[in-house]
Amino acid sequence: MDIADPKKAYSAEALRSFTASAFEKAGVPPEDAAMAAASLVEADLRGVETHGISHYLPLHIKRIKIGLVEPRANIVVKRERLSTALLDGGNGLGQVIAGRAMNLAIEKAARTGTAFVGITNSNHFGACAYWSMMALPHNQIGIAMTNGSKLPAPGGGRQAMWGTAPISVAIPGDQERSVVLDMATTATTKGRILLYDKRHLRLDPTWALDSAGRPTTDPKEALKGLLQPVGGYKGYGLALVFELLSGILTGGDWSYHLGGPLAEDFSRPTGVGSCFGAIAVDAFMEPIDFKRQVDRVIREIHESPKAEGYDRIYMPGEMEAECKAKRQVEGIPLDADVVMRLTNMGNELGVLFPTEM
Amino acid sequence: MDIADPKKAYSAEALRSFTASAFEKAGVPPEDAAMAAASLVEADLRGVETHGISHYLPLHIKRIKIGLVEPRANIVVKRERLSTALLDGGNGLGQVIAGRAMNLAIEKAARTGTAFVGITNSNHFGACAYWSMMALPHNQIGIAMTNGSKLPAPGGGRQAMWGTAPISVAIPGDQERSVVLDMATTATTKGRILLYDKRHLRLDPTWALDSAGRPTTDPKEALKGLLQPVGGYKGYGLALVFELLSGILTGGDWSYHLGGPLAEDFSRPTGVGSCFGAIAVDAFMEPIDFKRQVDRVIREIHESPKAEGYDRIYMPGEMEAECKAKRQVEGIPLDADVVMRLTNMGNELGVLFPTEM
Repeated sequence: MDIADPKKAYSAEALRSFTASAFEKAGVPPEDAAMAAASLVEADLRGVETHGISHYLPLHIKRIKIGLVEPRANIVVKRERLSTALLDGGNGLGQVIAGRAMNLAIEKAARTGTAFVGITNSNHFGACAYWSMMALPHNQIGIAMTNGSKLPAPGGGRQAMWGTAPISVAIPGDQERSVVLDMATTATTKGRILLYDKRHLRLDPTWALDSAGRPTTDPKEALKGLLQPVGGYKGYGLALVFELLSGILTGGDWSYHLGGPLAEDFSRPTGVGSCFGAIAVDAFMEPIDFKRQVDRVIREIHESPKAEGYDRIYMPGEMEAECKAKRQVEGIPLDADVVMRLTNMGNELGVLFPTEM
Repeated sequence: MDIADPKKAYSAEALRSFTASAFEKAGVPPEDAAMAAASLVEADLRGVETHGISHYLPLHIKRIKIGLVEPRANIVVKRERLSTALLDGGNGLGQVIAGRAMNLAIEKAARTGTAFVGITNSNHFGACAYWSMMALPHNQIGIAMTNGSKLPAPGGGRQAMWGTAPISVAIPGDQERSVVLDMATTATTKGRILLYDKRHLRLDPTWALDSAGRPTTDPKEALKGLLQPVGGYKGYGLALVFELLSGILTGGDWSYHLGGPLAEDFSRPTGVGSCFGAIAVDAFMEPIDFKRQVDRVIREIHESPKAEGYDRIYMPGEMEAECKAKRQVEGIPLDADVVMRLTNMGNELGVLFPTEM
C-alpha cells in the first residue's frame, strides 16, 4: 500500500447501490440500472479494476448526459431462429443489452441444447466474464466476445485495425471453482505499457510494435506504436474471427471503423457489436457428472509437478475468484482520487458516495 | 529443393484414389474411405504435410490392421437435442466420425440457426480446417476442435498435461478467399524444435520449457522438456477450454489420460474426443451481404500500411489456399522416402502407388 495515497475499502453492496442510483439519476430504469451496477462492481470484486466503476461509471454517465448513450434504450429483436437471435441494442448501455442477450441465449440453449445471440448498436459492456458466467447457475457453458477500440495491427502490418477482441468462456465445476477464461487477444494491455514507462522498465519484445511496425522493448516507442496480438499470427487470427463474429455478423462493423479508444471518443456512438453463446451441459451428459469431471481435471492440474520457481498452478479465473472472496469480506479498495472523482460525480447527480467500511 | 533428394509431384486425384483404395483394402467401406482420403489429401494440397498422407495414412492403416481402429465403425447417437448431438464414434477412423458429426451440425444449424456436435471414442481426424471448411458452401461459419497427444504443461507446471488443443474457424468470403483459422494452442510444434536442433539454431524462449519447467532456447533441452502454450497463460486457458469441451463434455477424457504421442501409441485405442460447431449466416443477415462485408474487411487489411520488412499481409488460411491452387496444377511434391514407404504399404495391401505427374 502506498502510504502517500492510502486506499480505503468500500463494501460491494454500498458501491452497487451507489452505482445503480447514479444510473437511475441519469435516466436508466431501475432494473437496468441494477444490472449495469452489478456487472461493474463484480469486476471490482474480481480485481479487474480496469473494467470496474472507477473508469467506466463516470464514462457511461458522461456518455448518457451528452446524448451518446440512450438510458432507456429500445432493444429490438431483428432476426430470430430457434437457437439464435440478433438484437439491435438501440445504443443503450452495453451491460443492459448484453444481459438481455445472454439471458436469451441461456433460455434458447435450455430448449435446443445450444444458442448463439448477437447484438449490434451497443456499447462497452465491461468485463466479458460477467456475461459468460451468467450461464453457470443454469448448468450451461457460457461464451462472450466483443469488438472494441482498435489497438493492434495484423501480422506484417503497422496500422491499428482491430480491438483487443476479448473472449470469455465459463465452464461449471462442482466443489472446485468454475473455470472462467477471460482474455484479450492482445499480448498485453496499454495500461501495462504505461506502467512500464513510468517505472523505466523494458518491455517483452512480443508485446508491442513501434510506429514503423518493428517489435520494440522501449515503452515510449511502444506508446507511439501498437500492441501486438498474443502469440503473433495466432492471436491475430483469433482476433479477426472474434471481430467478424461480433462486428460483421451482427450487422455492425469491425473495430477499425469504431471510435477509439472506445467510449472515450465523445464525437459519436461507439457502435459496439458482441456475441454470446451457451451450451447446455445436459444435452451431452448429466450436469453433476460433468461438473465432477471438471473438478477432477482441476485437481489433476493443481496436483501436477510444479515448474522451478512456482509453488502453485492457477486455473483460469481462480485468482479472480479468490480476490472476490477476499473483497466480499474486506471490501473493495479504492484510491483516494477515484473516491474523489466518484464523490464529485455523485454530488452532481444528487447521489451520496458511501462511507468506507 | 534438395538435389540429393528431389521431390516428385503427384496429382491430388491420383493420391486420393490411392489413399481411398488403401483404406478400402483395409476394410473401410467405400464412402468412408473416400471421405478419409479426401481430407488427408486436402492437407497435402494445402501444404499441411504434417497432417497429410505421408505420416497419417500408414499410421491409420497400421492401427486398423492391429485392431486398434474399427474400419467399419458403428457410429451411434448417444444424446440429441434440436441443436446438439453427441456421437459415439465406435473407435472408427477420426475422419469418418468427424465428417458425420460436421454434416449433422450443418444440417441442424440450417434448421435452428446454430449447432454444436460432440464426438467421443474417436481417433485422430487430421487437420481441423477440413471440418470447419465443410460449413462454407452452406453459407455457414464452421468450427472444429479436438483433444490429442499431451504436449504442453499448465502455467507454473512442468508435466505435459494436455494436447496441442487445436481449433479451426472457417468464415465464408465472396470474391476473396474465405478466412480459415487453424491453429494449435501451443507456441510452436515439436517438428519445428526437431528442425532447429538439426540446424543448430536457438529457440525463441517462449516456445519450450526444459525438464525443470524453465524456458529454454536450447533445442536439446526442449526435446527433454515440453512445449509452451501460445502466449503463456492465454494459450493455456484456451487449451483447457478446448480440452474440457472436446474431452470431458463428450464423455471421454482429456489429453492427460490419452496415449501420447497420439496414434503412435500402439498399446490401446486413442480415445479422442472432438467437437464441431456451425452458425448459419442467414440467421443473422443475408449471406451475400455478409460475404461481401467479409471481403471488404479482407481488402481493408490487405491494403493497410505494411510493417518494415513486410510487403504483404496474409489472412488466416490464405497461404494454404494459395498453396492448394498451385498444387492443384503442379501436383503435390513428395519426398523419395515418403514415396517408397507409401509404395511398400500399397504393395502389402495390393494397391499400386501412382506414377508422378
